[in-house]
Amino acid sequence: MSTPVCCHLLPDFVPTDALRGGVAVVIDLLRASTTIVHALAHGAECVVPCETVDDALREAAACSPGAAVLGGERGGMRIEGFHLGNSPFEYTPEAVGGKTVVFTTTNGTRALFRCRAARRVLVGAFANLSALVDCLATFDHPVHLVCAGTDGHVTREDALCAGGIAETLRERYNFGFADDVARLAVDAYTAADATETTLLTALKDSVGGRNLMVLGHEADIARAAQRDLFALVPEFLPNSGRIVVSD
Amino acid sequence: MSTPVCCHLLPDFVPTDALRGGVAVVIDLLRASTTIVHALAHGAECVVPCETVDDALREAAACSPGAAVLGGERGGMRIEGFHLGNSPFEYTPEAVGGKTVVFTTTNGTRALFRCRAARRVLVGAFANLSALVDCLATFDHPVHLVCAGTDGHVTREDALCAGGIAETLRERYNFGFADDVARLAVDAYTAADATETTLLTALKDSVGGRNLMVLGHEADIARAAQRDLFALVPEFLPNSGRIVVSD
Repeated sequence: MSTPVCCHLLPDFVPTDALRGGVAVVIDLLRASTTIVHALAHGAECVVPCETVDDALREAAACSPGAAVLGGERGGMRIEGFHLGNSPFEYTPEAVGGKTVVFTTTNGTRALFRCRAARRVLVGAFANLSALVDCLATFDHPVHLVCAGTDGHVTREDALCAGGIAETLRERYNFGFADDVARLAVDAYTAADATETTLLTALKDSVGGRNLMVLGHEADIARAAQRDLFALVPEFLPNSGRIVVSD
Repeated sequence: MSTPVCCHLLPDFVPTDALRGGVAVVIDLLRASTTIVHALAHGAECVVPCETVDDALREAAACSPGAAVLGGERGGMRIEGFHLGNSPFEYTPEAVGGKTVVFTTTNGTRALFRCRAARRVLVGAFANLSALVDCLATFDHPVHLVCAGTDGHVTREDALCAGGIAETLRERYNFGFADDVARLAVDAYTAADATETTLLTALKDSVGGRNLMVLGHEADIARAAQRDLFALVPEFLPNSGRIVVSD
């Protein structure tokens, strides 16, 4: 019997206690997941997700002088007084190397906290698809793909990424689908992924994609559509409140 | 501005008051929607959906002798003492012509009642896809495709049918998608519908499809996958509690 994959289109759709004993993968493709992968790939010590701007400011103030970088967004825009916004391109080795990235975004951060009950909480994006899938294959626990959505609404971009992860788990490691939501996500991914151009087109025509286009962040969508940019898996450690590179 | 289409993967996912002023289409492809279309196409006067078996028995007892036919299922099986189960093939002109079909199924009936607040409540299936789409195009109200699901779980078969309806509305009448759930349903339908064979394969590999395969009802799945068998639209009239052929 292969390990089953469940998919949840919103954190609110995860049944109570469903994550216990399982591995959760938080997906906020545009852009928190993608950006966290970039930050860790470019040498950040860790990423500290914070639910509110005030929490982030307090967290940064508690770090040694110069050790923390404040990053994140509200409504897709950089927060006043923060060093960085939420574009993966901002998280360069120069900006984040050796630093603690104190990070707050609207949907991705909330999704991470909602998944605390899982045995492991990983972060997934196209940017780390292969590494994530290879990592998941080493566990013997049910996998829950948890889409962050936007302000409580299902978003196509997160579902497409969940479908890509589920389909790759099936192809490479014979994972099965535990529910029809995983099948639908794979159907959606299959339809969009006939070519990488059509995947990008689908991502642009999504709740998150349209918001970013309006704000002039089209390049971020193209970046988020690129697969396997980095071979690492961010893991959220609820006890320490930190996201680090998983062993 | 084109009329928007929303999709809800479960009745429980419909936000409070979202249906007011809109047209709801209830989709329980395997098999209530498909069977209701067959019953009306084969001359049933009306279909009376009932939430419980007791309600159905009371409703039938209130009809003139011989005027009512009891139909429906629990767990995919005909209910003891009922004339008909929930296979579209049972609803022949001989069985239902001129009769009131008193009908109770687990998920479809509940979904109909949950949609009462809408301005109109229609029933959708592949069997009446074109007629439904042409009917929806005559209204100037938002369309809500409401998937019945199974026992509170999202099902691929209802989402695929919702995707087929949404995509046909877009192709023929330039309807837009009001949310990413409609886009995902269309993505899923597009992936499955490369050929009618692949649609049938997808339907068999769904929550409802697998249940029917176990019960030996494979022919019902093939029937439910056939498009445009009948040019009629069932409409639920909450005040009278009846489903009739829409004008």
